[in-house]
Amino acid sequence: MGGVALFIVLATIVASSHAEGIPQQIHHLRLYTGAAGSKIEGLSCLSWRFAVETDNFRDWSVVPEKCEHYVGYYMMGEQYRKDCDAVAFVAMAYAETVALAGDGRDIWVFDIDETTLSNLPYFARPDVAFGTKPFNNTAFNAWVAEGKAPAIPGSLMLYKKLVSLGFKIVFLTGTRETYRQVRISNLKKAGYHTWKKLILKPDNDSSTAVVYKSSRRAELEAAGYRIIGNMGDQWSDLLGTNVGNRTFKVPDPMYYIA
Amino acid sequence: MGGVALFIVLATIVASSHAEGIPQQIHHLRLYTGAAGSKIEGLSCLSWRFAVETDNFRDWSVVPEKCEHYVGYYMMGEQYRKDCDAVAFVAMAYAETVALAGDGRDIWVFDIDETTLSNLPYFARPDVAFGTKPFNNTAFNAWVAEGKAPAIPGSLMLYKKLVSLGFKIVFLTGTRETYRQVRISNLKKAGYHTWKKLILKPDNDSSTAVVYKSSRRAELEAAGYRIIGNMGDQWSDLLGTNVGNRTFKVPDPMYYIA
Repeated sequence: MGGVALFIVLATIVASSHAEGIPQQIHHLRLYTGAAGSKIEGLSCLSWRFAVETDNFRDWSVVPEKCEHYVGYYMMGEQYRKDCDAVAFVAMAYAETVALAGDGRDIWVFDIDETTLSNLPYFARPDVAFGTKPFNNTAFNAWVAEGKAPAIPGSLMLYKKLVSLGFKIVFLTGTRETYRQVRISNLKKAGYHTWKKLILKPDNDSSTAVVYKSSRRAELEAAGYRIIGNMGDQWSDLLGTNVGNRTFKVPDPMYYIA
Repeated sequence: MGGVALFIVLATIVASSHAEGIPQQIHHLRLYTGAAGSKIEGLSCLSWRFAVETDNFRDWSVVPEKCEHYVGYYMMGEQYRKDCDAVAFVAMAYAETVALAGDGRDIWVFDIDETTLSNLPYFARPDVAFGTKPFNNTAFNAWVAEGKAPAIPGSLMLYKKLVSLGFKIVFLTGTRETYRQVRISNLKKAGYHTWKKLILKPDNDSSTAVVYKSSRRAELEAAGYRIIGNMGDQWSDLLGTNVGNRTFKVPDPMYYIA
């Protein structure tokens, strides 16, 4: 952010509000530096999260160190759960409006990690610190191999609703094929008992998530499936091609997958 | 949300955290009803805003009445400005990495309302109440005709940076052609002094924003322009076709345009 001076007080806008209880004056406008890079001193963690969740800020590798407690409190507290529930409710309301063909070809695509299963017990570890430490692939895979990730309750609620409505479920994950059996047992343990397909990434596939997932969704559509809904915690689950009739983004301020 | 019972306590997840200062137990999980429709009693206004800003919740007409104060404090307070600044910083960092061709064809597309100009003085009026009252087209147009919308400081900072880097600016707005002269004077008064094109919507064009804006962007690309960046407050500014190399979503919890 070389071209941007530090802590510029840009301007003051004064606007009146007559709505009861709303402050009369807009706050002085103060710019904060370093929002885009690793130097984010002064950047609001709320603004960082907004930029992440709206896909404005991309290709980041770690949560800013100063945001460890913000992200930790968010993830461990009520708001994360409420946010997940709200997405699930919006998705259920949408699903209820869809007239299914009844031929078993109406599918809902779910990502797994941080979408249907939660790795929060792993990310809360002190050496992970909610994503503020560099990602450790070996340690994360060891956690996956334990097969004890809990369900995200809002997503499990949505899943049950979708199954009851007659949707077929497809899990589409970047987890490697190596972990198929443990993922199956983990999904069942967490309450996800039935699905049409569980698509894992081949061990030798080095494509990005957006390329890999787009190609698998294209194959599903080529096979006659209709993707009515598509839910993920990463924008790479929801962008690319064959994204489905509606996409749903669940929160994840802990890591980024391109 | 007929199928969903009220205030279901879904489950309790207990997860340990060893990170200093992070609470030891995940909160009990409580579902809130009505996230998707007009009945949103019990829905967190923060969750409502997350669902709106991530394009999960679509086609809504008014801000939930109970969220008037939440949205009002957000818009009038520091956080909205910080969030806008953060997007601007991310966009500037991106723009600085782009090698311009130098042929005047590298463009940045800006929406106007709630992207470059702010209608907050209008939305703070008691009969508008930050979007909790039904949209009044006549009253809003009268405000537009006054031509005194202030700049959004983060976007103005970005605009100046882009101009200095050699980008050409295109404003693409759903404002009707009728208001061209007043929009020109308003943009200049707010600090936007130069642009390549100012594209307004024909008075008789009834297409949706996503269709209208996609077609105009397609025309720009057909004319040889390269859309390096595209910034808007609505997802209908950023989805569809010809969206540009990177898109940037600025906050707007006050209204929805399809």
